[in-house]
This record gives sequence, structure tokens and C-alpha cells, in this order.
Amino acid sequence: MKQEWSERQRPPRLERRLEFPDYEATRAFLERAAELSEQSGVYPDLSFGRTYVNVTLHAPDGATEVDDTLHRFARDLDVLVAPADDVSAAPASRDGSASA
Amino acid sequence: MKQEWSERQRPPRLERRLEFPDYEATRAFLERAAELSEQSGVYPDLSFGRTYVNVTLHAPDGATEVDDTLHRFARDLDVLVAPADDVSAAPASRDGSASA
Repeated sequence: MKQEWSERQRPPRLERRLEFPDYEATRAFLERAAELSEQSGVYPDLSFGRTYVNVTLHAPDGATEVDDTLHRFARDLDVLVAPADDVSAAPASRDGSASA
Repeated sequence: MKQEWSERQRPPRLERRLEFPDYEATRAFLERAAELSEQSGVYPDLSFGRTYVNVTLHAPDGATEVDDTLHRFARDLDVLVAPADDVSAAPASRDGSASA
């Protein structure tokens, strides 16, 4: 599980915060995430403003831990975040220089 | 100000919760709201899941009350909620019968 996601308990969930350079990038990400939800049937709780998106993946009611379905969705969502988009990532990757 | 919006203090803001019959309706509303934001330059904090959207319109930092810009955005947003969409509205309007 890449470091950007935090796994929490009570209730069991995965959380990640994304920040974007502008609303256009935020909106493009939300569009891609919506398509992923429709394909996978997993619907995260998303809260967003102009340049941020907080993603929460709740385990189903009664579950005691986050299952593989959510971990897989989290990984798929990571793929949708173009490196140049997520400005909350380490500064080195924000200036567009090819990171090793 | 239509009854669906709640005005709160500390910090000053307008809040409204919308519920939709399915994800398609939720997504269509979010799309319309995004366009309204780009036209008006007002960017609410939205949190949503498969069939709900919570809208929060925060007054600018330092403001002591919600100003006309936000009240106008709230009214414009109301227009975007097609009567059949918002299932949190009164039951009479949900079955599609023409309300007086």
C-alpha cells in the first residue's frame, strides 16, 4: 500500500488527501474517479473544493477491516492521479523533473 | 432564502444536503454545479457519495456573515436541482405528481 493512504479504525477505512494546481485538474480527476466507480461499483466518500479532494473508502457496515476490494480501488485511484497533478506529493516531483 | 439551506455561524456559511435516486443523478448534478462554479468563480465545499451531496458555502476568511454572492450562488444551485432529483424533498414531489 503506497504511503499516501492512511488506514484507520472505528470505522475501518482508507483515507487520502489530494491537492491539485487548479480547479480544472481537480475536476478532471473527479471525472476519472467517477468512471472508475461506475466500472467497479465502489463509491468512495469524496469531499472537495477548488484545489483539494479528500477520499474516504469506508469498509462495508459490520466489517472489521478494510478488504481487498477497497485496497484494489485505492491502487486504481492512485493510477488516475497524474504525477504532475497531485501537488501534495514531494516537491521534487512537482517541478516536473523526471524522478528516478 | 428557500428553507432547504441552513445558515450557520462560526464560521459563517450556508449548508444544504441533497439526496439523489442514483449515482447517475448525483453525477449529473455535480457536473452542472461544476459548470456554475466555473461561470461564477464560487467554489463550494462539496462532499458526496453514491446518492448524496452535502454543499457548504463558506464566507470568505474574515467575513462575519454570508454575503449576497453566496446567497445568489445558493439560489442558482437550487435551480440546478431538478425536482425529481432531490429525493430528500417532500414525498409528494417525489412521485412526479405535478405539485401546485
